[in-house]
Amino acid sequence: MDSKPPPAVLTIAGSDCGGGAGIQADLKAFTAFGCYGTSVITALTAQNTQGVQGVHPTPPEFLEQQLTSVLVDIEIRGMKTGMLYDAEHTRRIARTLRAHYGDVSKVPPLVVDPVAVSTSGHVLLHEDAVSVMIEELFPLATLITPNKPEAELLLSRKGASVKIETLEDMIAASEKLLAFGSKAVLVKGGHVSLTMADVHRISAAHPEVKIVPESFLDENMEILQVNQEDLASRQLVVDVLREGEKVTLFVSPRIESSSTHGTGCTLSAVIASALAKGESVVEATRQATIYTHVGIETAFPVGRGHGPLNHMHNLLPRLVPPPTASNPHPLTRILIQSSRETWKAYVEHDFVKQLARGTLPRECFLHFVKQDYLYLKYYARAYGLLVAKSSTYSSIQTATQTIVNVINEVATHKTFCAQWGISEEELTATPESPSTTAYGAYLLDIGLQGDSAKLIMALAACLLGYGEVGLWLKKEASKPDSWVKLDGNVYLRWIEDYSGEHYQSAVKLGIETIETLAAADPPNALRFQEWCAIWEKCTRLEKGFWDMALNLL
Amino acid sequence: MDSKPPPAVLTIAGSDCGGGAGIQADLKAFTAFGCYGTSVITALTAQNTQGVQGVHPTPPEFLEQQLTSVLVDIEIRGMKTGMLYDAEHTRRIARTLRAHYGDVSKVPPLVVDPVAVSTSGHVLLHEDAVSVMIEELFPLATLITPNKPEAELLLSRKGASVKIETLEDMIAASEKLLAFGSKAVLVKGGHVSLTMADVHRISAAHPEVKIVPESFLDENMEILQVNQEDLASRQLVVDVLREGEKVTLFVSPRIESSSTHGTGCTLSAVIASALAKGESVVEATRQATIYTHVGIETAFPVGRGHGPLNHMHNLLPRLVPPPTASNPHPLTRILIQSSRETWKAYVEHDFVKQLARGTLPRECFLHFVKQDYLYLKYYARAYGLLVAKSSTYSSIQTATQTIVNVINEVATHKTFCAQWGISEEELTATPESPSTTAYGAYLLDIGLQGDSAKLIMALAACLLGYGEVGLWLKKEASKPDSWVKLDGNVYLRWIEDYSGEHYQSAVKLGIETIETLAAADPPNALRFQEWCAIWEKCTRLEKGFWDMALNLL
Repeated sequence: MDSKPPPAVLTIAGSDCGGGAGIQADLKAFTAFGCYGTSVITALTAQNTQGVQGVHPTPPEFLEQQLTSVLVDIEIRGMKTGMLYDAEHTRRIARTLRAHYGDVSKVPPLVVDPVAVSTSGHVLLHEDAVSVMIEELFPLATLITPNKPEAELLLSRKGASVKIETLEDMIAASEKLLAFGSKAVLVKGGHVSLTMADVHRISAAHPEVKIVPESFLDENMEILQVNQEDLASRQLVVDVLREGEKVTLFVSPRIESSSTHGTGCTLSAVIASALAKGESVVEATRQATIYTHVGIETAFPVGRGHGPLNHMHNLLPRLVPPPTASNPHPLTRILIQSSRETWKAYVEHDFVKQLARGTLPRECFLHFVKQDYLYLKYYARAYGLLVAKSSTYSSIQTATQTIVNVINEVATHKTFCAQWGISEEELTATPESPSTTAYGAYLLDIGLQGDSAKLIMALAACLLGYGEVGLWLKKEASKPDSWVKLDGNVYLRWIEDYSGEHYQSAVKLGIETIETLAAADPPNALRFQEWCAIWEKCTRLEKGFWDMALNLL
Repeated sequence: MDSKPPPAVLTIAGSDCGGGAGIQADLKAFTAFGCYGTSVITALTAQNTQGVQGVHPTPPEFLEQQLTSVLVDIEIRGMKTGMLYDAEHTRRIARTLRAHYGDVSKVPPLVVDPVAVSTSGHVLLHEDAVSVMIEELFPLATLITPNKPEAELLLSRKGASVKIETLEDMIAASEKLLAFGSKAVLVKGGHVSLTMADVHRISAAHPEVKIVPESFLDENMEILQVNQEDLASRQLVVDVLREGEKVTLFVSPRIESSSTHGTGCTLSAVIASALAKGESVVEATRQATIYTHVGIETAFPVGRGHGPLNHMHNLLPRLVPPPTASNPHPLTRILIQSSRETWKAYVEHDFVKQLARGTLPRECFLHFVKQDYLYLKYYARAYGLLVAKSSTYSSIQTATQTIVNVINEVATHKTFCAQWGISEEELTATPESPSTTAYGAYLLDIGLQGDSAKLIMALAACLLGYGEVGLWLKKEASKPDSWVKLDGNVYLRWIEDYSGEHYQSAVKLGIETIETLAAADPPNALRFQEWCAIWEKCTRLEKGFWDMALNLL
């Protein structure tokens, strides 16, 4: 998805067979964020959208073995932990990481999601594991991401009973949690109901606190604030990020939804992915909150209970595959495949076959040549439009060179016609056949209507088709007892021209041009359909051109 | 990714912590194919690209519990099995599926990948499980996908020692394997070295066999066959699909690569995904072979041994999020965010502030009005270009209506100017300021150069910006002790016009237009950058227009 290879990220968590949370949610989020996902499983759960039906913990030594298998072989650039199960599991993980990386400073970015209880109320972390997590794992962490009950649980370890009810409580809690030794703390606000007044109060008291407003809370966007009047009363979610003294509030509208299964897993997985890509903690958190938010809002129905969020909302299918060694010209191949019958009717047209046998009536060929002379004027003009639509000197030059080539080709036409007794006056005075007008005017219409890519697609069918005819006839002629007659064929020159090196190098350049275009700016569904439709139409117009010649229309 | 919600698919297989094979590969493939992935784990493996270091089988009753949790809650549309571990595990799976679905005909499409031995030589299926798989699982299967050693192992259960060396052997094996009771059999050819001669020999002897050529083996594509000369000697991979009497050969070039870890898992996972979407077995197999093939060729380095294929090659990042309830206008928001400072400098320009205070010098306002009169001619002409670029009557009508609106607005300008003592002659004779020419001519340039989307982006900054100014001033004016003075403000009419319902409904329509455009044809990186750049430039030109008015340039 990027030019850089995807970084490898690791989740150490439980397995949710229902696919909405745990390592399954993490792997989906890693993939959606263009990372290579690995996963060490702490426990299997029998689980679905209605709850947790059973837990089978991984034997601690096998947990360690999985972790070792990953660490010794794959360069991990970001990590997260989820459900850790119990004290022994937690200890093994922390010690294996310490042993592998030697120094804490060498541990890759690690996000610890201190999962304790599932949304459905199932205990996912044994009581005795909490202290181990705090003492052994938190000091390795870049970020810990407790929600309100988790933050309260963690802080209760300090002896005091802490209740988090307000934004001030969250900010105070973040400071106390930071003392456990992670580099940063994100206190998630999903369980705390707030409004804009709370944010304004904090802003007034602590102007140094940075506010990151999402959605309709942003500035200079009056035109997008549909519900201006209820903005003040709107329920918000505020996540509090603390790095040392620096506090950032991520403010977004609260969404009523039952599709929240796996939200915490996903958030920490995306933060780990973004950190693996080199983003700052603030930016990683921002990307993760937006991703999770949109995931909830675009969730599709799965199961009968609390469904998962949508992990695929930030993905689009790539319709033209990337070029590879065995398929270096994927777009050209798809265009031909998508119009297979029309393309075959064009490049293996009776006109071509009769020409290759030398049996094509002279008047048909001359009709073709005269109409081609008229067509090439449109063709040159269309390249003129392409020059006008170019954005680089290089593309201006390429298109201009084609115009020069067409002018030279026309000169050859004239010489050729003179040999057959047709004067330039006769050529110019030839009435234009409807097939010629249709094709020529269509090129100019596409040139006016669309962007340069669309025009290039329209111009390609002619260039590539004649190249295909040339190579096909050459190949057929080389077979023993071929139906193609080169010796004494009055049209030999035509076959040689289009199968020759000069024309074929123009074809190669044409193919490279459309392939570069598709690789640089891969078309999504609508543009892809348009390209295919234009190619198909031009292929049909080419066939029509030879019908016209054969039938002297 | 599609308009239909993603179908849920299930893998029943082992876990590969290294992420390249097993349920991890399956979940990645499901996600890449736009399916919702669920996963029942038969065994944990400690594994990486160098081999399998350990296996921890799931207790059979917990395997069954996972499967039940998924089946009772989530409507599964396609399934695959991979590593089954042993006889007891295999039996539990088959019986749980039978018990849940009642009748074999009600089992969703099931692909059984009869994984027996890992690429690195690790035994993944106990000897005693083979018969159970054949007897209890195959009869439930839509398709089984053995490779050469697996096919030989399965057929050895019939007593005879079968060796598969040729394409004829593969076809014969597919017939014998079908007798085990699955609806179809895919004998994978990765371990059998073949050439085009083998395919031609089969074609000649069995003309009813369908050939599906991939890559450069396709027809009427002489222009793409770079290595014409070595085509005959090129090593091929041929996968043999049999459904009853119908045999299809999938022919593709053999690729030399060490990034093949998880190939079999991925192939069966994609077939299950495509079947879940309603594709035929032939089409599902075709899509899966291409996907796997491109995955190998685009693999990026992971680990030190046999790396995984690339599961993300058919995905592109979606840069403009889908519209949601809390963010119904994602493109407009991104455009404003991407040019935040310029946008603010435009909509909160000193010209606007002085106008709102009523302190704007009269000559500045008149200079502005006169230049706006000249600018609107360009603006109307640009909409004329948009009409010419339209592809539906509806878009022709919308653009035409805007031209009519501009003409009406100009009439208002004239009346207004007459009140200030400026005649129509003076208006028309006003020399055009460079800022006016720059902005107007840029709109027409974009209209000539790009497609309708680009032009619409260019035209949006003016429409939306004036709307923003109108609403902002209205909001500011409504505050107690506002700096905005409406009473007695000589420019009151201007403020009322742009904050009024009539203009604001045009703004809403403009926003809907660009949002519909982005949702219908989401831009990839290059087009997205172009849109942002055009928006930024027009925003800058708008600011320049007010600089010009304020400085009487």
